[in-house]
Amino acid sequence: MGARTEFRYLSEADCIAAGVLDASRCVDVCEEVFGLLAAGDYLMGGPNHNSHGIGIVFPAASPFPNMPLAGPDRRFVAMPAYLGGRFDVCGNKWYGSNQANTLRGLPRSVLTLMLNDKDTGEPLTLMSANLISAARTGAVPAVASRHLIARKPEVLAAIGCGVINEAAVTAIVSQHPQLQRIVFHDRTLAKAQKAAHEAQERFGITAVAAETAQDCVRDADLVTIAASRTSPLVLRASWFRADVTILLSGPVTADEEFWTESSIIYDNLKLHEAYVEEAITSGDKQAYYDGVIGGPIYRLIDEGRIAPLEDSVDLGRVLLTPEQNRYRPSGRTVFVACGMAVFDIAWGYDLYQRALDQGIGQSLTLWEEPHAR
Amino acid sequence: MGARTEFRYLSEADCIAAGVLDASRCVDVCEEVFGLLAAGDYLMGGPNHNSHGIGIVFPAASPFPNMPLAGPDRRFVAMPAYLGGRFDVCGNKWYGSNQANTLRGLPRSVLTLMLNDKDTGEPLTLMSANLISAARTGAVPAVASRHLIARKPEVLAAIGCGVINEAAVTAIVSQHPQLQRIVFHDRTLAKAQKAAHEAQERFGITAVAAETAQDCVRDADLVTIAASRTSPLVLRASWFRADVTILLSGPVTADEEFWTESSIIYDNLKLHEAYVEEAITSGDKQAYYDGVIGGPIYRLIDEGRIAPLEDSVDLGRVLLTPEQNRYRPSGRTVFVACGMAVFDIAWGYDLYQRALDQGIGQSLTLWEEPHAR
Repeated sequence: MGARTEFRYLSEADCIAAGVLDASRCVDVCEEVFGLLAAGDYLMGGPNHNSHGIGIVFPAASPFPNMPLAGPDRRFVAMPAYLGGRFDVCGNKWYGSNQANTLRGLPRSVLTLMLNDKDTGEPLTLMSANLISAARTGAVPAVASRHLIARKPEVLAAIGCGVINEAAVTAIVSQHPQLQRIVFHDRTLAKAQKAAHEAQERFGITAVAAETAQDCVRDADLVTIAASRTSPLVLRASWFRADVTILLSGPVTADEEFWTESSIIYDNLKLHEAYVEEAITSGDKQAYYDGVIGGPIYRLIDEGRIAPLEDSVDLGRVLLTPEQNRYRPSGRTVFVACGMAVFDIAWGYDLYQRALDQGIGQSLTLWEEPHAR
Repeated sequence: MGARTEFRYLSEADCIAAGVLDASRCVDVCEEVFGLLAAGDYLMGGPNHNSHGIGIVFPAASPFPNMPLAGPDRRFVAMPAYLGGRFDVCGNKWYGSNQANTLRGLPRSVLTLMLNDKDTGEPLTLMSANLISAARTGAVPAVASRHLIARKPEVLAAIGCGVINEAAVTAIVSQHPQLQRIVFHDRTLAKAQKAAHEAQERFGITAVAAETAQDCVRDADLVTIAASRTSPLVLRASWFRADVTILLSGPVTADEEFWTESSIIYDNLKLHEAYVEEAITSGDKQAYYDGVIGGPIYRLIDEGRIAPLEDSVDLGRVLLTPEQNRYRPSGRTVFVACGMAVFDIAWGYDLYQRALDQGIGQSLTLWEEPHAR
């Protein structure tokens, strides 16, 4: 690149034109990322290269009347990373989230993603990232559903009928053509019925709503859970089939057996180690645990009730293991996915390349020539 | 705001049109921010609300041939914050830096700033932030030069003739009409001569180049230092006038007396406390110290050679103290400025408002209506 710097802006509509809704392709790209994670060909934030990101944490109270206060799903987070392989690019996902958005007709979170030249730092693209983030968040459990199953699933249960689980169900369905039935549950039955109706239309698979979470998961081989952080739901291990695979894309509250009597497979052990480090240095470990998906697990690890992270397995490790020696679920398997910027970068980069090829989006000029060097 | 989300893109040229080069106004805005910092009406990153930001840290070596490696001034950093007062907005500065950029005709760092609605997270503006960052980085020592001086300065010395010190000199000159002389020093005399020539043209003040740093600072009342992180310069306390005020906007190496026999005034004590916290948790405190401006100070504090942070003073505290009880420099004063996103947000917001008023920039649509809620 010369002194002139331009980059491409992709609105949400542009991202759709570039294929952001192609769930099956997104699953392939995310599986590629798990390979890079396991190999170590990435850098996320901080000196440990594995921080999830950094947030603006709103206080519970403030003497300043305008200062935003802690509230349901309310935060801002910046998630920078470098991803190697064919991506070989740096980027930053930046979003604000607030449950109150839904009252204004807005998504709960509003996300953007910037990709940058790894050498010069110049922006390559700024993208509307709501659909990128939803697609990759849905694709990650779908990658797990390829590899962490006892047999080909026939019944899929989905707890939580928001944007994330819509993406997860779409991605999972794209991987399992033999699925016979999908059961939805949400805090309101109407929302579950709507999701079931839409799924049946879209996928041509029988889809029903369940009034309780217990009814929802009873017959399921595969369960995807992405309920709101504010959900009062408490899962019980006894509700599930003995050989179920449960894919967590959001925080849940569960009885102890749910954790202690399951095989827990992580998305990336180093990320979880970084979370525990950050919890310790936050000065209030328990409060920090309350805010992250792995919190209940870390607490049980601290109590010596389940295996420490260093003796655990993540999906990348499973994928790197030759087929014949690979992890095979026997009992209940719980896969825990926390969200990593590398997945946004991978899917964003893939779309950016197609946008370039197809002339999608607007070119923006940062400078014709930099004013100062 | 409704369901349609649009935001304003401001290129570097747009930022110039909106007034980013108005150094005097930027000093006023930055003084306003010091007031908000001292009052506590801001939130930077992390649970302590005072993290400078989070970086992608490149390793010294990697088995992956494409992975960027540690190099001079090479890093990516995300710096999110909320700033109160009349700003009342969230934002994130994101930049990549690499000394090798200068060989390509690019600035060493390429920066963007996004401002977001504090409630919904919707982007308000994406701005080219090189000039914003330079202006605020120059304005911060100029605020200090209003308040931390023994008398009205007549001789200003500038060590380092890059973008940052150009901005600092411009901002300082805007505050001190009685200045008689400016002396520049850089690693190459030619660069210092060029800076002197340009300053004389711009400000109508006698400006000269000094071959050594010692000659540069000998007669100065006020010294601004913004040398490259890679500068081999070692400052000696004995070079300076006894009542000099030294404004640091970049890391320096100095003899111990430079630190132990000066009054050190910080930009924001809580930021420095957060840096020390992060150094401890990084696992390699000394290496972390090496990478930050305050490093040599923290090391001497650890050794009990200078006052701990909790017994120290920052500029906001000085400003909050009634005039008659305020800190008055007697001996050598060293002001340490590390760079905080709140200054970028303040200056960026001020420019954004003027861009809106004057119809500067491009309107970009994130979505006409969000695809998913």
